[in-house]
Amino acid sequence: MSKIAVIIADLFEDSEYVEPAAAFKKAGHELVHVGLEKNAVVQGKSKGTRVKVEEAVADVSVEDFDALLIPGGFSPDKLRADEKAARFCGDFLVSGKPLFAICHGPQLLITADVLRGRKVTGWKSIIQDIKNAGAQFLDQKVVEDGNMISSRQPSDIPDFIAASLKKLKVSSEQ
Amino acid sequence: MSKIAVIIADLFEDSEYVEPAAAFKKAGHELVHVGLEKNAVVQGKSKGTRVKVEEAVADVSVEDFDALLIPGGFSPDKLRADEKAARFCGDFLVSGKPLFAICHGPQLLITADVLRGRKVTGWKSIIQDIKNAGAQFLDQKVVEDGNMISSRQPSDIPDFIAASLKKLKVSSEQ
Repeated sequence: MSKIAVIIADLFEDSEYVEPAAAFKKAGHELVHVGLEKNAVVQGKSKGTRVKVEEAVADVSVEDFDALLIPGGFSPDKLRADEKAARFCGDFLVSGKPLFAICHGPQLLITADVLRGRKVTGWKSIIQDIKNAGAQFLDQKVVEDGNMISSRQPSDIPDFIAASLKKLKVSSEQ
Repeated sequence: MSKIAVIIADLFEDSEYVEPAAAFKKAGHELVHVGLEKNAVVQGKSKGTRVKVEEAVADVSVEDFDALLIPGGFSPDKLRADEKAARFCGDFLVSGKPLFAICHGPQLLITADVLRGRKVTGWKSIIQDIKNAGAQFLDQKVVEDGNMISSRQPSDIPDFIAASLKKLKVSSEQ
């Protein structure tokens, strides 16, 4: 089973954290919530879901985890104002370990400048940013490109979860 | 005196609307609040300031105004998911009329793809997006480039207002 980092800050889109997190746990994976400040409690933007940050991003590295989940909402905007958070996500993508990003999630990878040549989807407001970052934007429920799975919005969550669980299974068998 | 469009949606950064708006009115200018839906009331993200949208962006054009103010916060992200809102802001910049953008404001101009070759500043989370859009990012309180004034954050507001009022004065005398 995999140890999955969830990088999260205030104003995350509740469903884009709650639903994948529940599915990953149900499948037997371990989640570690990583954020800007250890022991801070962050809240979702739609339903006020509360999540405790277990590790500060400054204290972790890619080697500590098997996979990364980046929920959307305005959490990625808050995280990417922090250089270490952007670098952690960028290092993750480059490492080849599974990375799951939904909605505004790809913003962290744009700041890390690691999307050049990638196929990516995301929330409609960031389409031009994804293109300008040198990636190919695809308007699909799920885009799989190497170790990266991306989706656009809450209605894509069931497909996002299915693709992510499959990727974790394949990755753990390698 | 100038007729200034303020393009605004929910979760705007209160101070980045309230302070420039008060200064512009005090100087005798007229403000028209433009948004996604006529008569909707939008709210600020920090202090819950309420603003009534007087005109839908779909019903206005650059010809109706002398200048444009784009407050920051998460309002620009919500607006730029709407093609007409992005186009209105892009058309404004290209028209040569004064345009004032602070914090996340330049996001609308990135989506409109009109920043190539411009000197721009903005909130730190969007620095890479500004660069990827072909603009030169400058880490300054105020950047003036032709008809565009940009600033980074709430602490820049006094300088942002001073530069904007000066630009309105020069523009009305031309």
